[in-house]
Amino acid sequence: MNVLIVHAHNEPQSFSTALYQLAEETLRGQGHEVQVSDLYAMNWNPVASAADFGARANPEYLVYALEQREGAKARTIAADIQAELDKLLWADLVIFNFPIYWFSAPAILKGWFDRVLVSGICYGGKRFYDQGGLAGKKALVSVTLGGRDHMFGDGAIHGPLEDMLRPILRGTLAYTGMSVLPPFVAWHVPYISNEARQDFLRQYQDRLQNLENDQPLEFVRLEQFDERLYPLPR
Amino acid sequence: MNVLIVHAHNEPQSFSTALYQLAEETLRGQGHEVQVSDLYAMNWNPVASAADFGARANPEYLVYALEQREGAKARTIAADIQAELDKLLWADLVIFNFPIYWFSAPAILKGWFDRVLVSGICYGGKRFYDQGGLAGKKALVSVTLGGRDHMFGDGAIHGPLEDMLRPILRGTLAYTGMSVLPPFVAWHVPYISNEARQDFLRQYQDRLQNLENDQPLEFVRLEQFDERLYPLPR
Repeated sequence: MNVLIVHAHNEPQSFSTALYQLAEETLRGQGHEVQVSDLYAMNWNPVASAADFGARANPEYLVYALEQREGAKARTIAADIQAELDKLLWADLVIFNFPIYWFSAPAILKGWFDRVLVSGICYGGKRFYDQGGLAGKKALVSVTLGGRDHMFGDGAIHGPLEDMLRPILRGTLAYTGMSVLPPFVAWHVPYISNEARQDFLRQYQDRLQNLENDQPLEFVRLEQFDERLYPLPR
Repeated sequence: MNVLIVHAHNEPQSFSTALYQLAEETLRGQGHEVQVSDLYAMNWNPVASAADFGARANPEYLVYALEQREGAKARTIAADIQAELDKLLWADLVIFNFPIYWFSAPAILKGWFDRVLVSGICYGGKRFYDQGGLAGKKALVSVTLGGRDHMFGDGAIHGPLEDMLRPILRGTLAYTGMSVLPPFVAWHVPYISNEARQDFLRQYQDRLQNLENDQPLEFVRLEQFDERLYPLPR
C-alpha cells in the first residue's frame, strides 16, 4: 500500500508525534510506502483564499470551489496544494493524526481539508459519499485527547466521540468516498503514566498490523436517494 | 447589548458578507454596540503554536492549554489573541458568520476558536457546559451553504445540520457556557435567485430584531453528573 500520514501537532515531542512515528515505522516494516505531511513542520498555510489560484476563472468574485475545480484541472492551483493533492491521490491509505481541539481537528489540519480536498477531483456534482472521487482509499483518524473514556458514549457528558467527529468522519472523509476505519483514540493523554502510554502504542501497533481486518464505518449510499437526493422508500 | 460579530468569508462581495453587514446595521439600529472581527480582512492567523506565548511556563515542552492559562493570566499571550479575547469578554452576544466548509467552519475561524477560547478564562477544570467561563453570553451561528434544505434532517442524505455542527454548537460554544441560539441557515446560496437571497435577508433581520424571544438550544448540565463526571441516575 501507499500510505500518507497527515500529522498536526505543535509539540514535536508529543505523544501524538510518537503515534505517527510508530505508524510510519510499523507500516514501512510491513513493506508499505509511506509519505508524511507534518503540517506544523511544513509551516502549512490553512487559509483558503484567492491567493490559492495562479489563474482565475472569475477574477471579479471568488467562488472557492469553482476556482479549485478550474485550477486543479489547469494545474494552476497553488504549489503547496498541488503537492498535497498529488500525495493524496497516490495514497491507498491516509492516516490523519492529531490532538482533538474543540472536539475537532486543529485549524492547521482543517485548512488541509479546506484547501486540498479540491472540488472536481475529490467530489463534485453527484460524486460524493460512496460515489466520491476518493473511493477505493481508506482513511484512519488517530487522535489524542484530554478527556477520559467514560466522558464519551451514549448518556455520557459529551455523548459519543463519533458524533463529535461526524463532520470529519462522515462529512469530509466518507463524503469524498473514502472507506473510514473506526478511529484510534488515546484517552486522557496529558494525565496518564508512561506505562499507560506504552499500552496505547501497543494497541495502535496491533491495529496497524491488522488494518485489513478492520470493518469501515457505515454511512449512506447514493442509491438510497432519488435524483434530487430525496430518500427513496426502503 | 455589546455584540461581537466574527466573520470568515474570503470574498468581500459574498452573501455571507451581506448577512454580517445586515446584522451589524440592524443591531446598531436597535441601540446596541457592535464590534466586527472580519478574519480575512484582519489576515487572522489561525495556527495555535508556540509563537502565541511571549513567556513560557514550560519552555521545553508545549502544552498549548497550559500556556494559554498562564499567558492569559500574565497577559503575555500574543497581542492578536489578547485583542480578540478582550472583545469576546466585552460581548453579551457573539455572532459567528461563515460559509459551511466541510460541514464545519473554515479553518480561519476554527483557529479563532483554538487560539482565543483560552483555558483558564473560557473554560477549565470543572468550568464547562453550563458552568463554563462564558456563561451569561449568547452565541448565534449564522451560516450559508450550497446544499438544499431537504438534504438535511432526520433520514436526509446528510442527516440533521445541527448534528454536523455539533462540535461547534455543543462542543465549543455551549462547552464554554454560552447560551447557543438556533443557527440561522441560508440554504443553496450559490444557486438561488436574487429574490430568494432578499428573502433570507428579511428572515435574518426578523430573527435579529427578536433575539430576546429566541429559545437557546438545550445541552447537558453539570448537575446531571457526579464528581468524576459519570451520569447521575435521573
